[in-house]
Amino acid sequence: MTERINRQWRLAARPVGMFKDSDFQWTQEPVRALNDGEFLVHIEYLSLDPTNRGWAERDTYLPAVKLGDVMRGGAIGIVEESRNPNFKTGDHVSGLLGWQEYAISDGTGVAKLPEIPELPLTAHLGLFGHIGLTAYYGLLDVGLPKAGETLVVSGAAGAVGSLVGQIGKIVGCRVVGIAGSDEKCRWLTGELGFDAAINYKTENVLEALKRECPNGIDVAFENVGGQILDSVLALINLGARISLCGMISQYNATDRPQGPANLFMLIVKRARIQGFLVSDYMARAAEAMSKLGGWYVEGKIKYRVDVVEGLEQTPRAVNKLFDGSNQGKLVVKV
Amino acid sequence: MTERINRQWRLAARPVGMFKDSDFQWTQEPVRALNDGEFLVHIEYLSLDPTNRGWAERDTYLPAVKLGDVMRGGAIGIVEESRNPNFKTGDHVSGLLGWQEYAISDGTGVAKLPEIPELPLTAHLGLFGHIGLTAYYGLLDVGLPKAGETLVVSGAAGAVGSLVGQIGKIVGCRVVGIAGSDEKCRWLTGELGFDAAINYKTENVLEALKRECPNGIDVAFENVGGQILDSVLALINLGARISLCGMISQYNATDRPQGPANLFMLIVKRARIQGFLVSDYMARAAEAMSKLGGWYVEGKIKYRVDVVEGLEQTPRAVNKLFDGSNQGKLVVKV
Repeated sequence: MTERINRQWRLAARPVGMFKDSDFQWTQEPVRALNDGEFLVHIEYLSLDPTNRGWAERDTYLPAVKLGDVMRGGAIGIVEESRNPNFKTGDHVSGLLGWQEYAISDGTGVAKLPEIPELPLTAHLGLFGHIGLTAYYGLLDVGLPKAGETLVVSGAAGAVGSLVGQIGKIVGCRVVGIAGSDEKCRWLTGELGFDAAINYKTENVLEALKRECPNGIDVAFENVGGQILDSVLALINLGARISLCGMISQYNATDRPQGPANLFMLIVKRARIQGFLVSDYMARAAEAMSKLGGWYVEGKIKYRVDVVEGLEQTPRAVNKLFDGSNQGKLVVKV
Repeated sequence: MTERINRQWRLAARPVGMFKDSDFQWTQEPVRALNDGEFLVHIEYLSLDPTNRGWAERDTYLPAVKLGDVMRGGAIGIVEESRNPNFKTGDHVSGLLGWQEYAISDGTGVAKLPEIPELPLTAHLGLFGHIGLTAYYGLLDVGLPKAGETLVVSGAAGAVGSLVGQIGKIVGCRVVGIAGSDEKCRWLTGELGFDAAINYKTENVLEALKRECPNGIDVAFENVGGQILDSVLALINLGARISLCGMISQYNATDRPQGPANLFMLIVKRARIQGFLVSDYMARAAEAMSKLGGWYVEGKIKYRVDVVEGLEQTPRAVNKLFDGSNQGKLVVKV
């Protein structure tokens, strides 16, 4: 066989603020021979997610990526060569395969994708991947929405948020989304069925939430944190549940982030903020996939994939998550 | 009958920072005649509680006290005259009777105290009152501690905190208290059986918590908020529960309070902060009273009452809750 060259983005510096080109180093190296138990994945799509920013800077729920290592990232690809009996050439797989063209794995943390010919491969990074699971369990298991309640979703035009709002509608909630452009807001209310959408860049969020949530807020799905969380806290109802999925407003903070000033509202309203991680729900993935798949086929949920072409674009593309310019699930076509 | 004169503290100004004498006005007026359905209580003890500060400033879970009204406050007293068939002369009662010597009530929100001759009257403001209920349900129902877990209690030498720690020991937790003087810390570990106590005025709380909680923090009972809550968040374990009872560090804040910078730890550790109010547990008071009474008789829990003599001292006495000088349940003997 001809020698394969692996092109990679390695972490070169701990980011301060938004990612900069100089935080990464572009390297090329030959793909080494496989050992017993290993297989080689040719990566087709990278998943770019807000949590990437934390991984590059510090220990979070995973240890920080080491300087000089290939940047950690979710990806899907096809097995090109295998010395592992559980993965054979031609299998599609997903896992934390990194920002590179080829990955060698022993199978740890790597899952085979079900072969559903009518489903585009990118669906496994969105609706039928960690994104769908995050939305499904983060809303239903942590937020516990009930029909007739008001659900507020921040980061509502993002991959997770756009699904959360649609699941909220299926449950029977009044759903109010918060997003960063008028175009996104029109997409939420026009195409996805949100009851209302608030452009946080042009409106006072607290005042807009008062207008759009006349009965207060029962459930919030929080992707953003910061002032948006504070505005939500100001309007929660008795027994409200805030499902804390992310705090994207702080991931690029260079100062120590300021927490919500309105935390006392948790006492006044006997309410809670609960964090979760999708990794805790992997064992229950089948339930979510079956539900999400059913809703998708029935036309009750839609999703959008924002595809950036070319592995070399990755460091710039990832900032689209933080400057408000991406819509739906952000992926890189390698 | 001779005319009775009621001496009262009325709210004269919205407090800024700690209470000042000028926030209250001392008034005297004759006690008016009772209408049908009313009864007259001669107040014997006032309960001073951190929540009084919030009531004086703004709407919280109760509307703010109106300027010019008698200051709201819990109290117990004896019925001296009655035109209400449910309350007869000589009954001891408790309720939000206010900072005054006499209160006229139609019975709304007023409870008759059980007559237990061996129990001092002040016990109904502490162990067998809202304090005991707060500690019992706030820890057991919201914090859900299990044997072998580590429980951290802030405001640990206060009326609620000192009970919470002792109940934590009964459950089988390692209990670490945070308090504001070496004397209080000695009381917690020496007399109340806490495993460790941290003086937040002389130690770095984060470093001290690391030392005293070698296995991390599973449950926190939070009375203080601010930097103490941030230090707790830094050390929580997977699935930790933070029971949010109060945020006394902020009650006198003149600037907008700063929330916890470490809120992201809720995601990393799949943990939660949950607020509660004792008023939601009134219907289950009997269960708590019976348990607390049993433990008290068995010598498993102790409590301390800090008695200030004289209604006229009330505005100054209440600040003892905020400057760290009171220990146990603070009451005023009218």
